Amino acid sequence: MREETRRRGLEPDASNTGEVMQDIRRALGDAAVAKLCMKTISDSGADTVVVDGVRSMAEVEEFKKSARVILLAVHASPRRRYALLRERGRSDDPLTYEMFLKRDQRELGVGISVPIALADEVISNEHRTPEEVSGQMTQIVNRWLASVAP
Amino acid sequence: MREETRRRGLEPDASNTGEVMQDIRRALGDAAVAKLCMKTISDSGADTVVVDGVRSMAEVEEFKKSARVILLAVHASPRRRYALLRERGRSDDPLTYEMFLKRDQRELGVGISVPIALADEVISNEHRTPEEVSGQMTQIVNRWLASVAP
Repeated sequence: MREETRRRGLEPDASNTGEVMQDIRRALGDAAVAKLCMKTISDSGADTVVVDGVRSMAEVEEFKKSARVILLAVHASPRRRYALLRERGRSDDPLTYEMFLKRDQRELGVGISVPIALADEVISNEHRTPEEVSGQMTQIVNRWLASVAP
Repeated sequence: MREETRRRGLEPDASNTGEVMQDIRRALGDAAVAKLCMKTISDSGADTVVVDGVRSMAEVEEFKKSARVILLAVHASPRRRYALLRERGRSDDPLTYEMFLKRDQRELGVGISVPIALADEVISNEHRTPEEVSGQMTQIVNRWLASVAP
């Protein structure tokens, strides 16, 4: 989204990337972003891929058309997510708690809570270091890879 | 819901309790069930209460009107939840995986995924015993009670 926002000659801040996301969805449907990703994935030739930042079940269903998918949710409370975003400070991150809540509402409107609820696995990022979360993710993915190995 | 379904002279099976829930929401709004609960809670005189089975943020907001609330999600994959329901075998539990998925869609339609996504804490019930989940819940609730103690 940030890439596409820049391509359109706009600053990739929270408001513009949000607008661009909604515009692309309106034009290409709910699975639009997943369709764009699938092209990049196919071109890469990789047989195992991690996709970060799914926003709706439509996207998950799109990936399931051409791959076996494990859906992993990394969960944190709104308060904790806001603190982590402030630490990260990326160009499209919301600047105030009010903007953050507004972004949450926009993403909930797209359906982001459904893949969280229907995930195959959930990890809490409430009280853990990035290293601990990352270790848990690797463990889950490895277990899953072993279970679907040909 | 099962109580109310029986009161209406209907068998409290999966289909009837679902219908009754939707009927009550249509009549009394999205927070209907929470409003009914709040009456029971006030009557009890208890100062700390655990409410199980929240279905939407409207219900959470209703509770927040008269209490400090910690929102705790216990998460499991659809496959795991179905297995647990089959073990429990309550009168209103779905009998087939298709009925289960239909119930999920109905509850997602009410907005059940939003309080999961916006929860203050999440516990995974994917690979744990009931005792382990229960222990984690107690730990989280006690930590929270200590933090809001007067």
